[in-house]
Amino acid sequence: MTQVLILGGGGMVGQKLAHRLNDTGLGHGDRPELTLFDMAFPKVGAAGKEITGSVNDPGVFDRLLSTQPDLIYHLATIPSGGAEADFDAGWSVNATAFWEFLSALKTAHEASGGNYRPRVIFTSSIAVFGPPYPDRIGDAFLMAPQTSYGAQKAVSELMLADFSRKGFIDGMALRLPTICVRPGKPNLAASSFFSGIIREPLNGQPAVLPVSDSVRHWHASPRSAARFLTHAAGIDTARLNGRLALNLPGVSCTVAEQIEALRNVAGQGAVDLIRFEPDATIAEIVQGWPRDFDPARARDLGFEADADFDEIIRIYIEDDLNRR
Amino acid sequence: MTQVLILGGGGMVGQKLAHRLNDTGLGHGDRPELTLFDMAFPKVGAAGKEITGSVNDPGVFDRLLSTQPDLIYHLATIPSGGAEADFDAGWSVNATAFWEFLSALKTAHEASGGNYRPRVIFTSSIAVFGPPYPDRIGDAFLMAPQTSYGAQKAVSELMLADFSRKGFIDGMALRLPTICVRPGKPNLAASSFFSGIIREPLNGQPAVLPVSDSVRHWHASPRSAARFLTHAAGIDTARLNGRLALNLPGVSCTVAEQIEALRNVAGQGAVDLIRFEPDATIAEIVQGWPRDFDPARARDLGFEADADFDEIIRIYIEDDLNRR
Repeated sequence: MTQVLILGGGGMVGQKLAHRLNDTGLGHGDRPELTLFDMAFPKVGAAGKEITGSVNDPGVFDRLLSTQPDLIYHLATIPSGGAEADFDAGWSVNATAFWEFLSALKTAHEASGGNYRPRVIFTSSIAVFGPPYPDRIGDAFLMAPQTSYGAQKAVSELMLADFSRKGFIDGMALRLPTICVRPGKPNLAASSFFSGIIREPLNGQPAVLPVSDSVRHWHASPRSAARFLTHAAGIDTARLNGRLALNLPGVSCTVAEQIEALRNVAGQGAVDLIRFEPDATIAEIVQGWPRDFDPARARDLGFEADADFDEIIRIYIEDDLNRR
Repeated sequence: MTQVLILGGGGMVGQKLAHRLNDTGLGHGDRPELTLFDMAFPKVGAAGKEITGSVNDPGVFDRLLSTQPDLIYHLATIPSGGAEADFDAGWSVNATAFWEFLSALKTAHEASGGNYRPRVIFTSSIAVFGPPYPDRIGDAFLMAPQTSYGAQKAVSELMLADFSRKGFIDGMALRLPTICVRPGKPNLAASSFFSGIIREPLNGQPAVLPVSDSVRHWHASPRSAARFLTHAAGIDTARLNGRLALNLPGVSCTVAEQIEALRNVAGQGAVDLIRFEPDATIAEIVQGWPRDFDPARARDLGFEADADFDEIIRIYIEDDLNRR
């Protein structure tokens, strides 16, 4: 039975992934055995062995690796807003602890006489990029992060690639689009409104749009994120030719197109709940974000985006709105 | 008087830089006061206060920063071959110690109430790139290192940029071409022959060429390296728009063109000292290296390459061969 460890298994994407692994396995009839590691878990969460702790706990990775999991997802992170607000904590959790994680994997590899070399799938982010951008960001575009979060993800990608090249692990990094529609409550992230202007109206609540509706961004549903992660487990990493970070497919659309999709799916009444309240700070942050990609390598490897933003909304309705 | 600290000041490029700073200053009539830090120094070296130590010594950066140097060059590194042979030492010296360096700068910045924010110039490398390449590598080409050394330089660039973006330092990173002609003895680096096939014949010694003469590579003289480093001290980093790493200009030429330049400068007798002895291992390593660049940003900022490979040879003759 495949042993799967999910670091960050208590978070939104971690839970979607765990549910998907429990429901559909890894595509070869195998139902994996899950271990979920996180600082907290939902009261009613995905089935699996829950271990509560922090990636900064001394010796934590040696303990988590003692059972030699075959497949490890690393989703544990301080998100963008938090890493920007607390520089030291961001670097400690998102980079130093990632180094400790890789070092523990190398130790386990060496202790096994070179036999233990698990697949490690790391969730990076389109935050590794910075402006100015071409119309569509290609697979050979430079990393030039303009946030600490983006810099930490970029650094982690590079460390992962070198540990993989040396044969200590079999790693890959997935640069996820912005996940939309995020279930739950609005948060303080500058990107929160991309989900909020859809989620709140579908819940009969008012929503605030802080930027012009001409803003274009790059989205994937939580369901796609979970599908990307399970799909990545089956890829022959030799096909990556040493470039282990992939820009994943997504839906590029403007806020106006998001709103049009909401009208299609839920009617004018939902759209009327959105109030435009310009916020110069948020507008300036969002100005620096990627708008569109040409993720040719990931498409060749079988990663598939949501069809369009209408589908992204319908997925929220099916997977989250109607499940509460 | 400008206080300049050179980490790696005992090495070949560090000494060239120190000599240049002592000879010509920083371009505004100012002769800086030099502190050179390294594990060892030449018996007769450039003038300056020499401090012997390792970047891994505990507390070393706090001590070196106690005088608040205005300008810091970070050239200290385990080179490519060494970092590949000793994974742990490479990461420790080239990445972990660089993190400690940046952290000490942040501490000094904060202790000064935000006043201390030195210019930090870091020597990165074209080893941050990996194949496949376009005919000429542009300024927006991705980092995809295929050596530990390249990964460590890439990681250091990203950390430097984030500490700069936050205002703790005023940093920039220079991706130097391969330095040619290196004075001194051949070493075990795979790139050693690029210098050896010129230097050994000019010294009346036989030289071995381990690769086809169709191999193309990217070169700069030691004199250019020192000039790049002093030029960088005067650049307004706001012009870098947050992309603090620069591909520097160089001379792109094939080994055949190098040999033709040697014939031009030193005659057929010198060329006859080169013996072709193919080495499949070196040929495969060199296969993965960059061949040519379009360093538009650095050119716009006033960085200038050597005129051609003939000039690179003449610089070796003037600066090193005739000075011993």
